[in-house]
Amino acid sequence: MSLLEKTIETIAPQDPEWRARAKSRLDKLTMPHWALGRLMDLAMDLAGITRSLDPPVRERTIVVMAGDHGVAAEGVSKYPQEVTMQMLHNFAAGGAGVNALARTCGARVVVVDMGVAADTCDLVSSGKVLARRIGPGTRNMAVGPAMTREEAVRSLEAGIEIAHELAASTDVFGAGEMGIANTTPSSAIIAALHSSNATAVAGRGTGLDDEQLRRKIEVIERSLDVNRPDREDALDILSKVGGFEIGGIAGLMLGAASLRKPMLVDGFISTAGALIACKLAPSVADYLICAHCSAEQGHRTALGLLGKEPLLDLGLRLGEGTGAALAMNLVDAAARVLTEVATFEDAQVSEAVR
Amino acid sequence: MSLLEKTIETIAPQDPEWRARAKSRLDKLTMPHWALGRLMDLAMDLAGITRSLDPPVRERTIVVMAGDHGVAAEGVSKYPQEVTMQMLHNFAAGGAGVNALARTCGARVVVVDMGVAADTCDLVSSGKVLARRIGPGTRNMAVGPAMTREEAVRSLEAGIEIAHELAASTDVFGAGEMGIANTTPSSAIIAALHSSNATAVAGRGTGLDDEQLRRKIEVIERSLDVNRPDREDALDILSKVGGFEIGGIAGLMLGAASLRKPMLVDGFISTAGALIACKLAPSVADYLICAHCSAEQGHRTALGLLGKEPLLDLGLRLGEGTGAALAMNLVDAAARVLTEVATFEDAQVSEAVR
Repeated sequence: MSLLEKTIETIAPQDPEWRARAKSRLDKLTMPHWALGRLMDLAMDLAGITRSLDPPVRERTIVVMAGDHGVAAEGVSKYPQEVTMQMLHNFAAGGAGVNALARTCGARVVVVDMGVAADTCDLVSSGKVLARRIGPGTRNMAVGPAMTREEAVRSLEAGIEIAHELAASTDVFGAGEMGIANTTPSSAIIAALHSSNATAVAGRGTGLDDEQLRRKIEVIERSLDVNRPDREDALDILSKVGGFEIGGIAGLMLGAASLRKPMLVDGFISTAGALIACKLAPSVADYLICAHCSAEQGHRTALGLLGKEPLLDLGLRLGEGTGAALAMNLVDAAARVLTEVATFEDAQVSEAVR
Repeated sequence: MSLLEKTIETIAPQDPEWRARAKSRLDKLTMPHWALGRLMDLAMDLAGITRSLDPPVRERTIVVMAGDHGVAAEGVSKYPQEVTMQMLHNFAAGGAGVNALARTCGARVVVVDMGVAADTCDLVSSGKVLARRIGPGTRNMAVGPAMTREEAVRSLEAGIEIAHELAASTDVFGAGEMGIANTTPSSAIIAALHSSNATAVAGRGTGLDDEQLRRKIEVIERSLDVNRPDREDALDILSKVGGFEIGGIAGLMLGAASLRKPMLVDGFISTAGALIACKLAPSVADYLICAHCSAEQGHRTALGLLGKEPLLDLGLRLGEGTGAALAMNLVDAAARVLTEVATFEDAQVSEAVR
């Protein structure tokens, strides 16, 4: 059996008994019933995910999956492709948005080259980037498949391997990405899964104007027409209109779920990766915590497909894992509610009168 | 001139030049323009508040103002009045919701007895509670004014004094509260300022059923009828239908604004305090950061009166400063975006193509 098949086979839903045990404690905390709302829902999830009433959440890792996209040649981004590589240097120097926000929650940032169209050897040999390159960027999906089916499997398995490598030092994962043009394949994935047209899910990405957005929508529609991805086959969708870093994200999520670790989903692209992972193994959804709803049009639709309500809504549209980093503190908060708040009995506080 | 008058006189709006300087830096960060959305708006606020491009945000204090309410005798809460005092013990032992959440951001929790209907001497002498008692709880506002105008001024000045006392060890304040029945005076304050009836702003508080909510609304309407607070006179409103801890919160906000420190507003009751403070000195609003929109019906209306958009919306309805504690990490994040993210020039990243 392949690593992918084996991983999918080991993914079980959250444990309902641990959820019930958590609920029983949360019901008795010194506050009006369920007065911390979604933090308490999250605390139940953490118990169901980790099979514990003291869910470990201290060690945090944001994995930034990086890859380039042949479809960038169609002019779907405001930024040139070399920015992907330039941003890898920025991550390595600690100067990007995700570095700053990861510091607010003490998370480590791990950058993975899944297929950047540039030479990353220096960054890899200095230990700043993990090398899992599937190729030098995908092919242009507007004229044919972005990658082969075998490459799609390799990108997923690379993500699974990363999850295993980091597991010993990670209680909570966050998934982020970098890849110029990658809202375009993400939109195509979501349109394919949602059976909707590109207009409904494509957004302005890094800041396209109306004319540029029209062009992007046309490119997404052409990609779907040329490739005709099978909406019931996640590997078909990923290979035809996906990206190496999107496969890496989906694999990371499969790996985290198989290891029973909570996984924060960042923005639009990470959600596209999550949809691929959940199509391969529906129980992955039980391990996903959607950090935020981004300003990217279509993200709300994608979250709906995933069946998840995001924690934050702050108009973010950066990716990189920035939203995941912000939501790490909410995971910490939820765990503390479960473990550090006294019960009525412990604290000798009177309960509600009927 | 009284402390209150002096404080009000020293409160100036945010500095537009520091806001502009912050904007100029934020415009150049290595990300699509304003891609961190509301965090960047908040970063501008921090610069405008502190007159700095490196706003100090490390030292954090959540002030929990506690007080009891004569109107509790009308049966407007599901919990007996002694819970206020029991919760003071819980805060002191570190077992309440706010203690747990304050630990997620390294904030200190300072509890102030503004007028609890119990003997707090032990907690005061052991240094667990600061004593600023105006009285042993307010009088029942359903039959007459909750306090005298002089007591209202004293509660505000106590809050101002607390801000000054804590200023040396506080970069960012959060305002929370404890006081059984205190959504009732808060609803009355908001109804008075909004010229609306109680039905529009009163909510279920700690979890009232339909019949109990009807009774609470009737009590609020009776309190407004009996007292006829002057909507143009914040002191009149506070004294007739307010509370000692609500005055303390309003004073704390006046003090923080006069000291040019950012102030996180917690939930429904803290927002009522904020409305009193802003009525006394409209520029206070420039120093307020609304942490969240609570599940309490009427909070959205109150935030609208304040002209503020909350950062979080997680179904919280606990108070204590729990929402303020959660949002502290967003303040930290905003400051880091301003100070730690590289510019395009610094990081040699290509800018957007037109």
